[in-house]
Amino acid sequence: MTAKPSRRTAITGGLAGLVALPMAISGCSSAEATSHIEEHGVAPQPFAPSAPIKVAIVLYDGMTALDAIGPYDLMNYVPNLTMQFVAISADPVRTDSGLLALTPTNTFADADQPDVLLVPGGPSAATMSKNPEMLRWVQGAAGEATWVVSVCTGALILGGAQLLEGRPATTHWIAMDALAGFGAQPRPDSRIVRSDNVVTAAGVSAGLDAALWLISMLRGVDAAETAQLCIEYDPQPPFDNGHYGSAKEATRADAKALLAHALKR
Amino acid sequence: MTAKPSRRTAITGGLAGLVALPMAISGCSSAEATSHIEEHGVAPQPFAPSAPIKVAIVLYDGMTALDAIGPYDLMNYVPNLTMQFVAISADPVRTDSGLLALTPTNTFADADQPDVLLVPGGPSAATMSKNPEMLRWVQGAAGEATWVVSVCTGALILGGAQLLEGRPATTHWIAMDALAGFGAQPRPDSRIVRSDNVVTAAGVSAGLDAALWLISMLRGVDAAETAQLCIEYDPQPPFDNGHYGSAKEATRADAKALLAHALKR
Repeated sequence: MTAKPSRRTAITGGLAGLVALPMAISGCSSAEATSHIEEHGVAPQPFAPSAPIKVAIVLYDGMTALDAIGPYDLMNYVPNLTMQFVAISADPVRTDSGLLALTPTNTFADADQPDVLLVPGGPSAATMSKNPEMLRWVQGAAGEATWVVSVCTGALILGGAQLLEGRPATTHWIAMDALAGFGAQPRPDSRIVRSDNVVTAAGVSAGLDAALWLISMLRGVDAAETAQLCIEYDPQPPFDNGHYGSAKEATRADAKALLAHALKR
Repeated sequence: MTAKPSRRTAITGGLAGLVALPMAISGCSSAEATSHIEEHGVAPQPFAPSAPIKVAIVLYDGMTALDAIGPYDLMNYVPNLTMQFVAISADPVRTDSGLLALTPTNTFADADQPDVLLVPGGPSAATMSKNPEMLRWVQGAAGEATWVVSVCTGALILGGAQLLEGRPATTHWIAMDALAGFGAQPRPDSRIVRSDNVVTAAGVSAGLDAALWLISMLRGVDAAETAQLCIEYDPQPPFDNGHYGSAKEATRADAKALLAHALKR
């Protein structure tokens, strides 16, 4: 199924009159009762093909690399779209393992105002959701951005910036309760949730699905499908334990133990 | 379907007597006539749980970040497994967009001998497939490694190191002819191909599927499923144009044009 214009039909009433429009998307998904994308409220209009799109991807110590790199590598193939990797300082950030360093292209002080603000998650996201420098910049950038997007526990940073109050939202399954603490309405069975111009994606790899969908909203379905083919995004996971709701109990316990360890690194 | 021991049954005869054992894996895949994983020859035995596993991920200028970061972020959650990012020099490498820099942890001169050698692809892979420093190190490391793995056009570097002669293999769809030039037998409809201990994955995002499967071979299916849940790898692509064989003609043309541009960057 491709995104149809009708999916972006405005629902009147704003946040107070939110109407749930859960939509199952087919693609690679198996037939399940849960929806994989939810849309609420009014979506921004697509950009004109000639209009440049500026994307800011926030970097910080303790983030999860794939949360940022998945969307980045898809958006690489969108014409007339430029990206900046933006951080508190110009120093390379250490991703969650402590092994991989990513170098920002800009600091908060010299970054452009983005059209699309993308906030990745990671074990340190809960800490970052209280960091004044982070919150000040995210709030300012989000206020002027056309789209505000989080991947994984990046939603906690949006929550800390008071961008999720009253909004349906999703995050990594391990942080669903923390998300509720910011006044959001957790949607553990949706891989992508859009509430007006605020898009939240589930854990880590959900950034690929969210970015692909976002490209269709920014530049149309054809542009999204071209980016999809460029990175050959035709997923064939050999196992079926990627969703908490359907994962085996033993897998859940092992994953919780590993993630608890990650939180302490 | 989970990997069964029988899938690793040795086929006698070595390379000269290769027996094709194409196996469709279910998971998220749609029902198609093509197989998504092919296995040939003899697979290495799993490591004992107590045996440390060393992984080397090769970095180089002009590589595609996601080819490396997908597998890295899954392997982050494998107990008793350590990784090094290895490059010709200690300088940060510029990934294909020129925007994102990744910092090696080791140079070829000081890297550990890996148990698993992983070579990502990118627009510069064809050039790197002729780089003497790259080929010397890859050949040496591959000779002692238990597993040799490529993602995307990383297969061309394995080809340049003469590791694919006579072997069935896959790569990004745009490089399938180039792969044949190294004496490999291209498998455009397989997302993952194993020929003895040499594993090749299709374009970019296929590294996630390959790494997940590889973890099951290294440490068993339970470890793979736990890593899968940690990164919530339950893909739901909203569009279905990720495979060249089934992509629309217009999408193919657009993707070729974009990738040709990438090759010139």
